[in-house]
Amino acid sequence: MATSAPKWAQKTITLPPHRRGCHLITPKILNEIGSDLSEFKCGLAHLFLHHTSASLTINENYDSDVRDDTETFLNKIVPEGRSAPWKHTLEGPDDMPAHIKSSMFGCSLTIPITDGKLNMGTWQGIWLCEHRDHPTARKVVVTLNGI
Amino acid sequence: MATSAPKWAQKTITLPPHRRGCHLITPKILNEIGSDLSEFKCGLAHLFLHHTSASLTINENYDSDVRDDTETFLNKIVPEGRSAPWKHTLEGPDDMPAHIKSSMFGCSLTIPITDGKLNMGTWQGIWLCEHRDHPTARKVVVTLNGI
Amino acid sequence: MATSAPKWAQKTITLPPHRRGCHLITPKILNEIGSDLSEFKCGLAHLFLHHTSASLTINENYDSDVRDDTETFLNKIVPEGRSAPWKHTLEGPDDMPAHIKSSMFGCSLTIPITDGKLNMGTWQGIWLCEHRDHPTARKVVVTLNGI
Repeated sequence: MATSAPKWAQKTITLPPHRRGCHLITPKILNEIGSDLSEFKCGLAHLFLHHTSASLTINENYDSDVRDDTETFLNKIVPEGRSAPWKHTLEGPDDMPAHIKSSMFGCSLTIPITDGKLNMGTWQGIWLCEHRDHPTARKVVVTLNGI
Repeated sequence: MATSAPKWAQKTITLPPHRRGCHLITPKILNEIGSDLSEFKCGLAHLFLHHTSASLTINENYDSDVRDDTETFLNKIVPEGRSAPWKHTLEGPDDMPAHIKSSMFGCSLTIPITDGKLNMGTWQGIWLCEHRDHPTARKVVVTLNGI
Repeated sequence: MATSAPKWAQKTITLPPHRRGCHLITPKILNEIGSDLSEFKCGLAHLFLHHTSASLTINENYDSDVRDDTETFLNKIVPEGRSAPWKHTLEGPDDMPAHIKSSMFGCSLTIPITDGKLNMGTWQGIWLCEHRDHPTARKVVVTLNGI
């Protein structure tokens, strides 16, 4: 149990456009927050995506086939195109499926910080899942809190 | 990086009964926590639903069709009624599907606070998804932490 | 609104191997963190699973049929075996489905702390969902923060 003065850091990161699918973004995130992170001995890192048609998740960091298969799954599970029952179609056939996928995986992550680093498992990485056909830049608000 | 004295606030909100489906509750939440929120320059807001047959998610805040389509999706993906394979049926045919939907979307949200406000994207809103046929009041524990 | 000196506690728990399926682990978690928890009047408990083929979720704590039915649902929704379209198959037919299920339910939970206890609803419990056929021990990093 520790009680030294807690610190807060908050920063908005802009991720460049990624094509539809799942992407490993751990290096990009660490590049942006690594120096702030190193000042925390114990704490939590919170990542919050500012969008409703993409998502953040933690999953396998090694084999890109896992990311491709996850995209295959999402497309299989959420109907798109003529057979889809959606009312919300004004922004294109990929838009309503994108909203659903965003709620399935979620738009935020909380990761423990230990000794200045994200304390994830050996095979865990941070994924950005882009659910729209047309890639756009995506904003992530990162909040660090700890001692 | 900031180190002023951190503050904590915690409050239980009771949401009135909502019919089965997805509902935008950002105004209701802000009405309940807005004055507390305004005292935080930087922090995190945590919302925790006390139930296993409803869920909280963040999604589109403008077109109610998105909420209707999401309900359509949930009903399509989780079998209900005669064809459903569930063992847990004592509390009605909508109960086991409600539990599953609750774990798919989750019962809690963490949202960054910046300059006294929830720091969400332009199109993001907080949704309560009610998965039971018979609407009941729902409790949400809100915890605010920051400086 | 409270401003006394915040405390942090962090601990890695090892859960023993559980068979494929959903398991209630609230007692095990409380056994590990209960004494630390009792020192917090108000705060948040964060649980983070170090794996990409299992998940943590909060759901019904009473009828084990709910846990069995949830496992039935996950197996129904994520194809496995000959008919599955996965590229990632080197680690066995249950591996890629396990990764997908892990992102569907997520690998972390944040739960409010009130008066030294986890502030969950009457029927809520913490579940470990093991998605692999071969059970292995699973690590959870628990981070407590509050006053």
